[in-house]
Amino acid sequence: MYEVEVKVPADLSSVERALEDAGAERAGEVVQVDTYYDAPHRDFAETDEALRTREETRDGETTTKLTYKGPLVDDESKTREEFETAVADGAATATIFERMGFSPAATVRKDRQFYTLDGYTVTLDDVEGVGEFVEVEVETDEAGVERARAGAFEILELLGLDPADQVRTSYLGLLLENAGE
Amino acid sequence: MYEVEVKVPADLSSVERALEDAGAERAGEVVQVDTYYDAPHRDFAETDEALRTREETRDGETTTKLTYKGPLVDDESKTREEFETAVADGAATATIFERMGFSPAATVRKDRQFYTLDGYTVTLDDVEGVGEFVEVEVETDEAGVERARAGAFEILELLGLDPADQVRTSYLGLLLENAGE
Repeated sequence: MYEVEVKVPADLSSVERALEDAGAERAGEVVQVDTYYDAPHRDFAETDEALRTREETRDGETTTKLTYKGPLVDDESKTREEFETAVADGAATATIFERMGFSPAATVRKDRQFYTLDGYTVTLDDVEGVGEFVEVEVETDEAGVERARAGAFEILELLGLDPADQVRTSYLGLLLENAGE
Repeated sequence: MYEVEVKVPADLSSVERALEDAGAERAGEVVQVDTYYDAPHRDFAETDEALRTREETRDGETTTKLTYKGPLVDDESKTREEFETAVADGAATATIFERMGFSPAATVRKDRQFYTLDGYTVTLDDVEGVGEFVEVEVETDEAGVERARAGAFEILELLGLDPADQVRTSYLGLLLENAGE
């Protein structure tokens, strides 16, 4: 399974109006607190991998997921292999990794509003310390990556956004860049 | 939290009778399939740690847990720190670790019958390729370790077993010993 995802900076209030005009469906809102781990045996920045726990709060209820993201498969669309599972105990999960020598490296906190449009998920992200962004995302098999990317570009244009503004840096990367300024 | 656990080889059918005579309560039966992982950056055999996934089937329903066990804190009773969480997707969990360079090293499969007696959990284990064992186990804080161990010894004696037969080697260790014979 591949995740095709295109992200551009945006003014969220104008994108909200464009989504309503396009007939997009609201699909909820969450607060996500992501913790990224450094590994004891690999430099994830160098291998372009990520290990993350995500605490997600929706309607007052918090769940935690553990996610591994592999290196970029398709650079243009930021496509990566991704493996994820819900975990019942976020604190125990953190301790398991810390005991094995992994260390929490950075935390990204954001409000996300989800919409669906033409089979794509459109996400309006307000990222603490980073800014406002729109992500257009869909899952596909390897053969469908190119078609999925073209479709994501069309959605951005429909919302008055320019695919050429695509930001390939993750929120984590942007946060670390801001911290370094 | 510390887990005090004493294990001895036993004939399970005679222990079952002794448990009934002692008024122990049956507390269910499960099949457990444990997969132990080798780490890419540490020799867990040398550091005396373990990372394990446990697939447990009870009444036809299968759940998976992820567990880290730290080195022995109290050698006599095999006491270790342990951190555990349920995971929703066992296959994804396995892939996350494999992608990070961990590798499945061994699988231990066993039928376990649980009883409770005087606040202790008594477990009758039939371990594939290893044999039959009884474990007496209780959780305690650091200050309670010695008292908990004495209580576990009393329970073994009540069941006609000899605490001096204690096996400190894990089922994984016993399985690997048998494999090496």
